[in-house]
Amino acid sequence: MRARKEAAADADSASYAGMQTVEDVAEFRRILTEARAKGRRIGFVPTMGALHEGHLALVREAKKHGDYVCVSIFVNPTQFGPNEDFARYPRTLEADSASLGGLADCIFAPNAEAIYPEDDQTRVRVGALAEPLCGPFRPGHFEGVCTVVTKLFAIVGPCVAVFGRKDYQQLAVLRRVVQDLFLPVEMVGVPIVREKDGLALSSRNRYLSEEERARALVIPRALTSAVNAFNAGERNVSVLREGVRASIAASTDRIDYVELTHPDTLQILGASERVLERSLFAVACHIGKTRLIDNVVLGEDPAPIRQS
Amino acid sequence: MRARKEAAADADSASYAGMQTVEDVAEFRRILTEARAKGRRIGFVPTMGALHEGHLALVREAKKHGDYVCVSIFVNPTQFGPNEDFARYPRTLEADSASLGGLADCIFAPNAEAIYPEDDQTRVRVGALAEPLCGPFRPGHFEGVCTVVTKLFAIVGPCVAVFGRKDYQQLAVLRRVVQDLFLPVEMVGVPIVREKDGLALSSRNRYLSEEERARALVIPRALTSAVNAFNAGERNVSVLREGVRASIAASTDRIDYVELTHPDTLQILGASERVLERSLFAVACHIGKTRLIDNVVLGEDPAPIRQS
Repeated sequence: MRARKEAAADADSASYAGMQTVEDVAEFRRILTEARAKGRRIGFVPTMGALHEGHLALVREAKKHGDYVCVSIFVNPTQFGPNEDFARYPRTLEADSASLGGLADCIFAPNAEAIYPEDDQTRVRVGALAEPLCGPFRPGHFEGVCTVVTKLFAIVGPCVAVFGRKDYQQLAVLRRVVQDLFLPVEMVGVPIVREKDGLALSSRNRYLSEEERARALVIPRALTSAVNAFNAGERNVSVLREGVRASIAASTDRIDYVELTHPDTLQILGASERVLERSLFAVACHIGKTRLIDNVVLGEDPAPIRQS
Repeated sequence: MRARKEAAADADSASYAGMQTVEDVAEFRRILTEARAKGRRIGFVPTMGALHEGHLALVREAKKHGDYVCVSIFVNPTQFGPNEDFARYPRTLEADSASLGGLADCIFAPNAEAIYPEDDQTRVRVGALAEPLCGPFRPGHFEGVCTVVTKLFAIVGPCVAVFGRKDYQQLAVLRRVVQDLFLPVEMVGVPIVREKDGLALSSRNRYLSEEERARALVIPRALTSAVNAFNAGERNVSVLREGVRASIAASTDRIDYVELTHPDTLQILGASERVLERSLFAVACHIGKTRLIDNVVLGEDPAPIRQS
């Protein structure tokens, strides 16, 4: 703990003067109260660290909406299933701090005991929106997400909170929490940031071997084909869905889902339905030990791979 | 809606000038923001209306902690089971308004759609504390309570919230929600208010016929015997519990539970255990169609019936 604080402090004095790194809930609140007293509007980006350009896009977006930007870095144990990658999830606080220098005003990096104190037993969950897509494959995941984000929102207080659309279902679920619980938070979603070859940025991409990363490209390629087909007039759910499913099945090790859904309710479109003029195309699959998700909103988003 | 507003407004101008009655969430928030801007500290008493002297004691307590006191009146559908008394629960807004005149600054009386908007699907629940006592007899009850109070707390914002100890388990559960979710709320519990003959005040007492009310007195009498036995040195869980259980069984129609528990964890004490120096003695039973609860903390509370 001490070593971590000092490392952060050192880094702080080095390349990103003025950014504070805080572990303690009460101290974080005090800093926010002080910022508010100066009339600053809080921008908040909750993350699990292992930051990449996708996260930095969220921080830049937060800067547009607020004039004091906090990033939380907390690998939330309750959103991982027992067979998931909680233990090996990358923890890279020093590198994260360095990459936030000049972008964020404050990093909140609590330990697990601070967020889940002894005897903690309150949980927040969402119903129908958490049921399709990742729901059945990650039981308890969205409850963990809703719980930790409700805690973080209560600690931060009124703010503009920024989330990436790669975790599309998470964003939809959290918008619902904010609305249903009347939380004083303005929710902002940011488009997926992709590598030049189309792969959606993810902290989990660093798990991939070179060979696995090459195979992962099937996901943006398949979604690109779907966008192109949709833009060329294809409206048959089955045709669009099975095309993507077949491509992804050929190059990945296991598919969790390949689905077309309503973009707001996330209700899965049936094979005999026509696709909506705005439809979510969402994919989750495994390559080796790594689970990857990706999505595109047909009728709204550009193709993951741009024609040059 | 209009009729209700006008009735409240009429009453307002009559006997309790200055007290506002608000239905709308946004307007309620605006009023609270205005009060805070004047430096006022918010005292908040969430109720389901049908106010009695017990509620008024909560409002007086809120007045000690805050200088702008709000009372919410909302019969929360999600905390009633399908076979419970939601439909017949007394709705007495005009009488409630009159009794709050001069005590409260604002009544928040939203309708169900305002608190549970269309597509509402977020729920808040507590684990172990919600499991014993009323837990098994009222499935979903505490989830409904936690959900509505989390909503109300988010609407009200930072405040001192006052609850009665008659709903002892509810208070314990809600303290847990506030602590676990980091809500900016100071929780205050107020001792049970009783009639002169010892019956704990309850909005449900008005369901009782004269004969039923007479039978209900067995509850404070039995708890009084237990307090007296405890104060005389009895520490045997079984002796204390079975004494109360036998008395109550003789005069009521159905017992849900008669239990001694740890006063904080609410874990039920086993028959072979010695009673703790502070132990909760909690009772729930039915008289006719009416469910009554009562409790006393041995080693802390006075006997429900005072010796004259």
